[in-house]
Amino acid sequence: MQVRSEAPSSRTRVRRHPERAAYEHGAIAAILDEALLAHLGLVQDGLPVVIPTMYVRDDDRLYIHGSKAARWVQLLTGGADVCLSVTLLDGLVLARSAFRHSMNYRSVVIYGRPKLIEDHDEQLRACALLVEHVVPGRAREARAPNQKELEATAIFSLSIVESSAKSRAGGPLDVEEDADIPTWAGVIPATLVFGSPIADALAQPKAEPSAEVAAYRRGGAREPS
Amino acid sequence: MQVRSEAPSSRTRVRRHPERAAYEHGAIAAILDEALLAHLGLVQDGLPVVIPTMYVRDDDRLYIHGSKAARWVQLLTGGADVCLSVTLLDGLVLARSAFRHSMNYRSVVIYGRPKLIEDHDEQLRACALLVEHVVPGRAREARAPNQKELEATAIFSLSIVESSAKSRAGGPLDVEEDADIPTWAGVIPATLVFGSPIADALAQPKAEPSAEVAAYRRGGAREPS
Repeated sequence: MQVRSEAPSSRTRVRRHPERAAYEHGAIAAILDEALLAHLGLVQDGLPVVIPTMYVRDDDRLYIHGSKAARWVQLLTGGADVCLSVTLLDGLVLARSAFRHSMNYRSVVIYGRPKLIEDHDEQLRACALLVEHVVPGRAREARAPNQKELEATAIFSLSIVESSAKSRAGGPLDVEEDADIPTWAGVIPATLVFGSPIADALAQPKAEPSAEVAAYRRGGAREPS
Repeated sequence: MQVRSEAPSSRTRVRRHPERAAYEHGAIAAILDEALLAHLGLVQDGLPVVIPTMYVRDDDRLYIHGSKAARWVQLLTGGADVCLSVTLLDGLVLARSAFRHSMNYRSVVIYGRPKLIEDHDEQLRACALLVEHVVPGRAREARAPNQKELEATAIFSLSIVESSAKSRAGGPLDVEEDADIPTWAGVIPATLVFGSPIADALAQPKAEPSAEVAAYRRGGAREPS
């Protein structure tokens, strides 16, 4: 895996607050592995479209998937360029001035052209990884996709080579002349918390959630609290 | 406010799972008011770009803002079309088959062309609303933007007329032939939880967080737990 300290392309270079940028694979991978949702941007008839979707990272690529009936999936099959954005919200930053209010976050942006996976074994492997990204071990517990299901689904790989991370942490950056304003200032930490699993109506009497499901959480750097 | 039960345009009509769509203002507004982040898609040199950004709803429009030095802000100032996507993750849906795994969510998509706000009073009002969207009451506690800060910022309004909501709730929709698979199936609820506020290093001894800050939360429909 390539180690980078510079942006891999002009459009991935972070221009606003360059001190918040990271271009190393490890920093980018950690954010992609913790998050669940991406927002996928593409161009349809010259106009922008954004699709929320799940994904999984596999080394230096992402897998994404969707129904072959969806318009955005048909655009990708036709070779569309995408911009994929992943954002984790870590906190609300309350400053002494309205202008310096901000949010703490960790984000990744990836540019590229997803490639349709046509190999059956890679399709099955990508489906398993997509499930594993949500719950480790789950691909072994669930029935694998059958031929009909695979045929209804398009799976794409997207190289994460053209990507960058950007993050903000810590308290407000008030200007010096605001230091005496007696308003409380600081950070309200935000975390995505997972509750106790709720069994569905068809649950088999002996079916017990796995340890990963019963104590589900997603790791990652958090706001100190 | 217009009451709608039909999509306002072809591109906002939900084609996949139309039973999950909503087109009424109330359903759209509730999601926009609870969420903090939007992903804003636009087209730059024919290629897609997605920007995570905050926003606030004011009746039937959103306000968004950014530094005039940012490329995406310059594109909006030039009259670019956007697709704005807001997604709240409510839970992970674990089915008996890999294919039927899903997520519970509430999402909104808005298409339109943001309009640059040039009126000084509307700029100030939009800035106050943006702060109020994050913490109610905060615009009164923080110093309002001065002329220099306002001049560095572009504020846009985006009509939410061309929009739709889509949501999923409830357990897995397994196919009948999978009912006997003895794997646990159900939902892991997800909620964005806010921790105790952390005062910054410059905090005035007498500065106390407001009641809204001390017990911060954002409302909305949640997974039953």
